[in-house]
Parts: sequence; C-alpha cells; structure tokens
Amino acid sequence: MSFDKASVRKVLEMVKAQGRGALAPDECRPVCAAYGIPLPTEALAKSTAEAAKLAAGVGYPAVMKIVSPDILHKTEAGGVIVGVGDAAAAERAYEKLVANAKAYKADARIEGVLIQRMLSGGHEVIVGALTDPSFGKVVAFGMGGVLVEVLKDVTFRLAPAGAADALSMIDGIAAAEILRGVRGGAPIDRAALARIIVAVAQLAADFPEIREIDLNPVFARSDGATAADVRIIVDFSPLRERYRPSQAEILAAMNRIMRPDAVAVIGASPEDGKIGNSVMKNLINGGYQGAIHPIHPKVPEVMGRKAYKSVKEIPGPVDVAVFAIPAPLVAGALKECGEKKIPGAVLIPSGFAETGNVELQEQIVAIAREYNVRLMGPNIYGFYYTHKNLCATFCTPYDVKGKAALSSQSGGVGMAIIGFSRSARMGVSAIVGLGNKSDIDEDDLLTFFEQDPNTEVVAMHVEDLKDGRSFAEVAQRVSKKKPVIVLKAGRTALGARAAKSHTAALAGNDRIYDDVLRQSGVVRAMALNDMLEFARCLPILPAPKGENVLIITGAGGSGVLLSDACVDNGLSLMAMPPDLDAAFRKFIPPFGAAGNPVDITGGEPPATYRNTIALGLDDPRIHALILGYWHTIITPPMVFAKLAAEAVEDARRRGIVKPIVASLVGDVEVEQASAYLFDRGIPAYPYTTEKPVAVLGAKYRWARAAGIVAAE
Amino acid sequence: MSFDKASVRKVLEMVKAQGRGALAPDECRPVCAAYGIPLPTEALAKSTAEAAKLAAGVGYPAVMKIVSPDILHKTEAGGVIVGVGDAAAAERAYEKLVANAKAYKADARIEGVLIQRMLSGGHEVIVGALTDPSFGKVVAFGMGGVLVEVLKDVTFRLAPAGAADALSMIDGIAAAEILRGVRGGAPIDRAALARIIVAVAQLAADFPEIREIDLNPVFARSDGATAADVRIIVDFSPLRERYRPSQAEILAAMNRIMRPDAVAVIGASPEDGKIGNSVMKNLINGGYQGAIHPIHPKVPEVMGRKAYKSVKEIPGPVDVAVFAIPAPLVAGALKECGEKKIPGAVLIPSGFAETGNVELQEQIVAIAREYNVRLMGPNIYGFYYTHKNLCATFCTPYDVKGKAALSSQSGGVGMAIIGFSRSARMGVSAIVGLGNKSDIDEDDLLTFFEQDPNTEVVAMHVEDLKDGRSFAEVAQRVSKKKPVIVLKAGRTALGARAAKSHTAALAGNDRIYDDVLRQSGVVRAMALNDMLEFARCLPILPAPKGENVLIITGAGGSGVLLSDACVDNGLSLMAMPPDLDAAFRKFIPPFGAAGNPVDITGGEPPATYRNTIALGLDDPRIHALILGYWHTIITPPMVFAKLAAEAVEDARRRGIVKPIVASLVGDVEVEQASAYLFDRGIPAYPYTTEKPVAVLGAKYRWARAAGIVAAE
Repeated sequence: MSFDKASVRKVLEMVKAQGRGALAPDECRPVCAAYGIPLPTEALAKSTAEAAKLAAGVGYPAVMKIVSPDILHKTEAGGVIVGVGDAAAAERAYEKLVANAKAYKADARIEGVLIQRMLSGGHEVIVGALTDPSFGKVVAFGMGGVLVEVLKDVTFRLAPAGAADALSMIDGIAAAEILRGVRGGAPIDRAALARIIVAVAQLAADFPEIREIDLNPVFARSDGATAADVRIIVDFSPLRERYRPSQAEILAAMNRIMRPDAVAVIGASPEDGKIGNSVMKNLINGGYQGAIHPIHPKVPEVMGRKAYKSVKEIPGPVDVAVFAIPAPLVAGALKECGEKKIPGAVLIPSGFAETGNVELQEQIVAIAREYNVRLMGPNIYGFYYTHKNLCATFCTPYDVKGKAALSSQSGGVGMAIIGFSRSARMGVSAIVGLGNKSDIDEDDLLTFFEQDPNTEVVAMHVEDLKDGRSFAEVAQRVSKKKPVIVLKAGRTALGARAAKSHTAALAGNDRIYDDVLRQSGVVRAMALNDMLEFARCLPILPAPKGENVLIITGAGGSGVLLSDACVDNGLSLMAMPPDLDAAFRKFIPPFGAAGNPVDITGGEPPATYRNTIALGLDDPRIHALILGYWHTIITPPMVFAKLAAEAVEDARRRGIVKPIVASLVGDVEVEQASAYLFDRGIPAYPYTTEKPVAVLGAKYRWARAAGIVAAE
Repeated sequence: MSFDKASVRKVLEMVKAQGRGALAPDECRPVCAAYGIPLPTEALAKSTAEAAKLAAGVGYPAVMKIVSPDILHKTEAGGVIVGVGDAAAAERAYEKLVANAKAYKADARIEGVLIQRMLSGGHEVIVGALTDPSFGKVVAFGMGGVLVEVLKDVTFRLAPAGAADALSMIDGIAAAEILRGVRGGAPIDRAALARIIVAVAQLAADFPEIREIDLNPVFARSDGATAADVRIIVDFSPLRERYRPSQAEILAAMNRIMRPDAVAVIGASPEDGKIGNSVMKNLINGGYQGAIHPIHPKVPEVMGRKAYKSVKEIPGPVDVAVFAIPAPLVAGALKECGEKKIPGAVLIPSGFAETGNVELQEQIVAIAREYNVRLMGPNIYGFYYTHKNLCATFCTPYDVKGKAALSSQSGGVGMAIIGFSRSARMGVSAIVGLGNKSDIDEDDLLTFFEQDPNTEVVAMHVEDLKDGRSFAEVAQRVSKKKPVIVLKAGRTALGARAAKSHTAALAGNDRIYDDVLRQSGVVRAMALNDMLEFARCLPILPAPKGENVLIITGAGGSGVLLSDACVDNGLSLMAMPPDLDAAFRKFIPPFGAAGNPVDITGGEPPATYRNTIALGLDDPRIHALILGYWHTIITPPMVFAKLAAEAVEDARRRGIVKPIVASLVGDVEVEQASAYLFDRGIPAYPYTTEKPVAVLGAKYRWARAAGIVAAE
C-alpha cells in the first residue's frame, strides 16, 4: 500500500493553524482517502431543500448527521438519524437535526448535515489508534456494539503494524469466530479489514500529532469493509523525546559495567554493618578476580585494599563505580566518575525520586548525561554477575553459575530472586536491581544479555516500562534468540494503584501490555513464583521441534490433571497414530489406556516406565514428553528418577533431544527424586501436576514466538 | 407463584400416548400458561385466507412460523418469516412458508402457520433447562444472539431454583451489565425475568420426563419479559434411580467405618511385601488401639494377633473389614462380612470396573446391597483416620493429627496428599481413597465429616460425581458449617477425555460443575497444589468478619504484586479512612506510603513492623491482614516472624481474632521464618506473593458462601 502523506500533512497544517484539537468530518474524508480507508458515499447539505436533492444522489436508505465543530459526540446531541427512506424524510431529518443541535448547544456553529449511504450487512467492528504513555502509538481492534463494549473484547498492537499483525488481531479477539462466519453467515473479507487496520496504524505512526483515531463502526462485510464514522483527535504540543544512546553505545557501556575488570567502591568502609563494608566483603569473598578500589575520604586501606580519596586518584581505568554513600553526596562523586571516564555508576543509595526527591534525581541524571556515565538505580541492591564471581551488592553473595539472568525493579522482589535461587540451586548468570531506573532500564539490560554468552534466558520483574516501545523493539529482536520472561506487576487496577504509590510511575493499560509483550515474543509470567520457575527451567529445557505433546503416566489421576494443565497452558496433546498406539500397548497392561495420556497403570515395574519413556523419546512424531510418576513399592521414586534420567541421557547420546518434564506424586521421597531429575535436565516437581506443565507451556510460548515451532 | 401441574400432566399424557419426543407449539402454550411463562399473542392459520384474517387480530408487525411435527429446527427449513406488515404480506408469507417446508422435507406433515405478534425492544436472552447426567435437572440462563453463542456466556443452577438463584443468574453472566442498562438504555425488569427462570426450573423439576426446555429468545424489557419461542423435549423412558440410604443410615454406618473399634484384615499376611502384611503393620505400628483381627486361611496368628479363617469366627462385633485379597475372592469374603453384620468393607484390590471387569463389580455391589454392607472402593489405597491412630492402608502411616479431611478418587492423587502432608506437616483428620466409588462416595464422606468433631475442613479430589445432585445437596448443608474444597479433575475437554479413559465415567460440562459447586458453597480449587494448600491453611485461618483487607508491606514491590493477587482472588482492599491513614503514618517514614497497601519501606526496624501490625489487628474496621516482609539486616526474618506471631498472640489474648497471611521475600532464612509463622496460625510463604493471597481468598469464598461475610 502507498500512503499519501502530503495530503494528510496539508489537512493537519490547517487544523493546527486554526488551533483545533480534532478534525472536522470533511477533513477526515481526505485523510482516510490518502490512506486508502474506504468511507461510504456522502454529501454535505446546507439547506432543507439541498438535503432532499443530495440524498437522492447518495441513495436510500441514508444516514444523516449534524456537522458542527462544537459537537463531537453526535449521538448524545440527537445529531444522527438513520434509515432516511425518501425525499420527504430527508427534509424532515434535516430540520430535526438542526433543531436538536441548537437544543443541545444553543451557540453551536452548524456547517450543515452530512448525508451518507446507510451501511448495513456484515458485522460492526471498531478500528482505532491511541497514544499510550509507555508504548506510544498503538492500534486497536474489536467488535462494535454495546455487548462487546461491556465485555471489553479488544486487542492492541504497536503501530505501525503489518498485515500479519492485523490478521492476528482479527483472529485474536474472543469473538473472532463470528467474523469467520457462524450459523451459515458468510465470513468477512479479512484482507479488506486488515488493510484498514494497517492504514490506521500507519496513519498514527506517520503523524505524531494524531493522538487518537476512531473508526466506529466499521462495517466488515464478505465483500469489503467500510468505515461508517471517523474521529481524529490531534495534539500539536511537542512530545518529550527520551534520551536513547545507540545500540552500539549501550552495548559498549553495558559490557564494561556488567563484566568489569576494575571496580571502584565509593563509600567503602572498614566498619561492620555499613553498606560500603558489605559491598567490599561481597566483592572480595565472592571471589571477584578484577581490581577492587575502595574510595574513602580518610583511611589508607579497606580490607587490605589500597583506598583512594577519589576515583580520580586510581591509576588505571575503572569500569564501574559502586556507590555506597548517602544520597546528598552522590552528585559530587558522580562528577568525579565522569571526569575519570568511568562508563557506569551503580547507585545503591535511596533518597531520590522514590522518597519524593525528584529534583536530586534529575540533578544526577543531568551530570550523567554531561559526562556520559550510565546510571544503574538509584535505590537498588546492586547486581550480581556470577561468571565473573562478581557480587556488587550489599546482600549475600550467590555463586551457582548458570544461564538465567534476572532483574527486578523492586528490591524486595530482588531478594526473592536471591532466596529462591539459593533454595532451588538455580543456575544464574546475573541478578540486577533496577530500582528507580533513572537511566539504565530493561532494554539496556536486554541489549547486553542478548550477546552475553553466559546468558540463555532473561527474566524481568517490571512495574512500569518508561519506554515500552523501545523495550518492545529490543525484546522482539532478543526473543528470537533467547527467551525473555516478564512479570508485569500492577496489572490490575488495584495493583497499578499500589505501583503508583511505590514508584510514581503511570501504569499502562494491562491489555496493551499483554498484547504488545506477546507481539514482542515475550513470555509473560502472571505470578512471581512462575517467573522464578520459568527462569529456572527454560535454560535447561531443550526447545521443542513441534506441537505434539505426549503424557506418559503411572497414575491415571495425574493423567487427567496433566491433561487439564495442558489445555490451560495452550499445549496440544498429540492424537495418537494407530501404529504408535499399538507400540505402546505392547508395554502396558491390557486394562491400561494407550491413546494420550498413555496410562501405564500404577502397579508396573521399572521396565514399563523405561520402555514407554524410551519409545516416547525415540518416535520422531512426538515432540515433548510429560511424565506422571506414581510412588509404588515396585518402582520407588529414586528408581524411577534414575531410569528416566538414563533414558534421556541415552537418547541424547543418539542425538535425540526433546523437552521433558515430570510430575511426581508420592511420599516425601519424591522430593529427592525430583531434585535428581532437575539436576539432569528434567524439570520435575512433587505434589503438583500444574507446575511442570506450566514450565513446558512457557518453553512452547517462546518457541512459537521465536519461530522454532510454527505458531498455530 | 402457584403452578398448575395438572394441566401440564394432561399435555404430557397426550404426547406420551402418541409416542412423540417433543411438544408441538400449540402444546407448549398451555404448559407455559400453567407455569406463568408469558408468551406473545398468537393464532394458528390453516389457510392463506385465514392467515390474513388472524394476522389482523394478532396485530402487525407479525412473525409467522411453520408448524410441523416433522420440522424441529424451523430456521433451517426456511420456516420463519419476520416483519409481516399487512394482510397481503401475511398471505404471501403463508404460501412461502408452506412451500419452504415442502422443499425442506417433501413429506412433512403441515399443521398450519403460527402467527405471533412480533416482539421487539429490550434484550434477547435465553432461558432453558436440561438434564445433566450427574446433576439431573439444571436451569440455564444466558444472553441470546450469535455473539454470546460464540462467547458461551451462560450460567446454570440446580432445578428447582428460587428467586434468589434466578437473580444471581441474571447478575452472574459476563454481559450482565447490559441488562442493567448501559448507554442510557433502561434496565430490564429483573423480577419478571427471574419469574420465568424460576418457572422453567420448576417445570423441569416437577416433570422428570421433560428432558429439555428452550425459551429462545426471551425478550427481556423494562416492563416485563416474554418468551418468543418455546421448545420442550420429552423422554418417557424411566430414569435409573440411584440407591441412596437415608442420612441417618449413612451416618450410622460411616461412623463405625471411619472410627472403628474393631477392624478385620481379610488377607492379613505374615509375609513381607504383601499388601495384607503392609496393612497389618500399619494398623499395629500406627498405634491403633482397637481390636485388630487378621483373617487368614491357614496360619494361627499374624504379627502376634490371633488369626481367624473367616470374619464369622471373630467373637465380638467388627466395624470394618479391610480387604487385601485378589479381586476374584472378594465376593465370597464379602458375603461372610454381610453375615457377620459388618457395616463396611474397604476394598483395596483392583481388577474391577477400572480394568473393564464391570460385571465383577456389579456382583459385589449386589452382595453389599443384600447384606447392607457399605463398600469403600474397590481399587483404593485404603484410608487414614488419625485421631484413632488408624492407618488402614498399604501405604506409609501418617500421624500429624489435625483438622483437615482429604479424599481422592485417584490413588496417585492420594499419594500426593500423603507426601505433601508429611512434607508440610499438615494437620490431618482423615485421608480416604474412593477409587471406583462402587458405593461410598463424596456425599457419604461429607455426611460423616459434617459431624466429625475432629474435622474442620474437607478437601476432595473428584473426577466425576456419580450423583452430583446428592453431593450438591449435602455440600450446601455442610459448607454452612465447614469449608468444602473440591478439585474437579477433567474440567477441560482433554482432561475429561483422559478421565473417561481412566474411570469410564462421563465427565459433565465443566460450566455446570462450576456453577453448581459455587451454588453449593463449595470452594473450588483449580489445581492440585491449591487443593493441598487450601486444606492445610483453611483450618488454621480464622474466618473474617468483613470484606476489608489491608496489606502491610516492607517491600513496595511486594505490595504491588499482593494487590494484583487480591484482585485475582476477589478480595477488596479497604479504602483507608483518613484517621486510620494518619495513625499508620505516625509509624512509617514520611516517604513511605500509607493508604492501602501500607508501605512501611524496606529499611525499617522491628518496631515499625510491630506497631503497624498491632494497629492493623486492633482497628475493628480492618477484617484481614496480608503481610509483606522484606529481608533486611535491620529486621531479619526470624525477628519479623517472632514479632508478628507475638502481635497476633497478644491480640488473641485480647479477644481479637483476624485472618492473617504473609509473603516473605528474602534469602533462604525466610523459609524457616515462614514455617515458624505457619506453626503459629499464620499461613506464610517464601518467594511467592500469590500463594498467601490465594489461601486468604479461599477462606473468604467460604465465609461468603457460609453467610459469615455478606456476599458482595
């Protein structure tokens, strides 16, 4: 499609010159025409007599609408009459509309009455665009009418949006089936409707001053789509541009900050209990092998390391400075970091925006910009980068190296990450506190983790995205390579209110977050524990190569619950081919159920588990396995765990790699068996059928978004 | 309302005599009239000329519909013409309808054309009744039209249903707001619509042979409601009546079975590894103090207890016989139990219906009926009753006495219950395996637990309810006194398919289950782990006295997530009164946030937690507390746990009892602190904000259903 930007620009210049906030209907028409948005035949009547004449040209039945720059909500003003059937009716309608307008607003300027061919047939839908405070221009699509207004069945994408996005919106609403044609109704012309969605998105994206577009209703028919009413709201006040270094600049700085060879600790202290003492201890005891430079105004050394009065006295280059000094002293020390050309400052201290001291925060941000220093925080616990044995925090060190990188906006959630990691022995590459996000935020981190060889999955706790668009763009790129998990806090109205009191950030509409995060390939976690489990499991689970999931279970009851969980998590239980069914039946008792789940029944010896698991691994039509183990004397938990791990290991040796998860029900020995399986690459959980399936579902969500598995 | 059953009976007799499966339209009319269901004015035309005459009497615009016993789906057959405006149109419509009918089905018997006043205005809704295989007669309500057909926005209640039920249905659909009047639309006449729902439910309940009623659409207006079309499907084949002893009989037997003074073990064995040996060991080593009588064909004693060849040789009375013999031997031993007048048999053996051997199961059920022996199982692990130190199972003993009774249909889930209980040190009164449910089922258990002084909450894993109606009736009564938690497995289509292969039981429509369980006051758990956590926590959580929930948190980030979880679980965050806000502000730093959540901020000493928790406990406007703890050096986990437990204990001494839950984020020490709090009546969880709120939400759901807290 080609879009005629010049024509739109001309209209907007006129509106701007006249200081208006919305386009008049006769201005919307050329704008729509320029972007190929079909409108009904219409004419503007300026008198009663003209109404009859023009209506005949437009064709009956007609809709007649008052045109007044002072009346935006026409329906409210009695400004719309539908079903005008002949010349007499057109004349009566003209007079009634003018009278209604005057009654509604005595001094309303009336430019005439618009006469349109009345559209009917097909389905009424809504296409619109709006400006989200975090994501910027966003296109919206939903069913029209009061019913869906009540049911809030609407979906969003970042604008501009392509045809594939537009089609996914048409398919993505709950009422999508209606548009496909139910009860013998003809399916709508999806391509025509998609073209309108794409055009609206492009129009909003091309013109920052267009803040809202509202095509309501659009008649979506089997032979095209036409917008029956158009509203365009504009705002010519300049948008605040966010400071954004280039991806290369971000990467250069982030690599030095996250994997530093030399660290300065500003406020390093020999005194137990001080934050600057904890940071020093954690750096040294954590085993960090780079240079550690304590900065202290008086003492000659801290914990055996030579201390300096200022970073400027340090002889060699410094990659990152960790601040453990009170807020009022930060600005001065930050300037010195700038002069020393240190690329990053980790600001542990609180006392900035989160306590209402916005000015102080703006001051340090200004200094950082001036000297090109990137700021992490303030108001954070610091960060870990385990593969450098780096614990630049005042918390306890963490040393289980692995592939999961986690970040949190809140310090409390950060502590949960650390505790959970230690408890679950989760392999971690980095844990980062973002706090007030005065500068470094999620998209900086993503840009770093994208190319960090030690990171294979990124999990982020987010309360607000200050620049959701930038995040979405980076996430879209990164999620093609590595899973990006987001726990969005404040997704409910109450939660958002709490988020507001917490970080003074405007929480966006959760539906927009949900749609845009999905569009960006992000795996969204709806609960803290889910985020943690996904981070723990996704790096150890291989990616599936297709949608066929098979359940093999010793407990029929677990099989039912696992099947329920598959539906909840969008997984497809493979339809069992007859030959495979027969192959499984060879191993299980006659009263066991093949099909899917394969129910091997409870009283079976280890060989039955072993044979069926091996078959599930070997058959190339099966892409993922869910194991349901039932504790019996005949096959005790550790016997099961060992045979399952062996089967998986054996398959791997033969080049067969599939994601496998397990649910273990039984007495407490199943806990040890679960841990054993986990250590061997099989996420396994005791006393729950939900968790292992949720984890597999998360891996699938990512695999579909990354294009590894074709999305259904 | 009074209902004229005799008139309906007369119509049904006629339909039965003619061997028909549905009522003709002119038969539906007197049936509706007898139950006060308003229908539009109408007349039946038998000729073209008559059509014009009668239409004038009915009034224009009219709807005309073909009447033929051979055409049930009139729309499909082109058998409906709407908007008939005058006599000529009525004549044309008559001829067209007859022609369409003949084209649709050449030999269709045509009785004429029905002419009705065309209804319009208001909203089209559906009222119906159906016969569910588990719940019997059920009344349904939903919005009409293709949109809601696609969105499946419909709700069910057991029939008969009262006016309160009917009103809760009108309010209970997702689109309820529409009926209340949106965009200036008038609200519907709820009472009139409720009367129709009540009438339909009563009609279905009064006449077992009425299998389906379909009023579609009903026009719900602001000044009444009228059913525009009625279908009534009948089936005169006799219903299979389920065997049901009286509640008193159930209780007498269940009390002896569950709390026996003498147990016989049929198949008791001295040989290690045999099930009959495990059962003996568990009874003896579990500390059971009643008489234990091993039954063995040869040996004189088993594990030091005198053995008998048959239960009939045992000198005193026996309350329950535990069967540990192969399936084919069960029938014979069961007869002997009957002759010995043992009220209950616990059938551990498998090899019955679950392996396809339905006949053998029917045989033992027949014996049980003949001798009035209640059967638990077959195909089960047995049962525990801890307060008698009774472990009548082949699994490992469990001895943490408490107030939660749990049952499972599946043995695997039973093992999960035992493992989880042991791991979480859950206080349990009973764990029961129901397996094939040949006789004793969930409503028998509920009847027992209702009056069991050792049980305060009942949690049940259910795959199917063979008699859902009976369960619902008992649950409705019991849930007023004690929470009843149900995990319904097979709630998705895939899960139900798995359930079918597992227990050969027809899984009902999950929406019916969901609505009826709620109607019965049941707290539904959607996941296995939820069922277990609810069972663990509900007995130790006091019931709330009102809806005002307050969050007190040291971690602002936790506060946001806890708020989200409150919305997810239907909890109301109290709007903070100014005086209370001021009172909290006295204790927290100026940059902390009062309001709700009360964010005391992270760096606070124990006194801040102590003071705010005490205030939250003391103020009578606050009904429940959610604590968010953040691990710091200033207030370490165990310090927090102790001060919180003390505050609660102190309040209890002063007669203040409120439900309190806690989420602890921090390093692994928070696990110990959580356990400490749990032991002191405060459900507390590390690394999750969801779980504690879900548990509190479950308590609230019960409290509302039981009428302790007024339902919103």
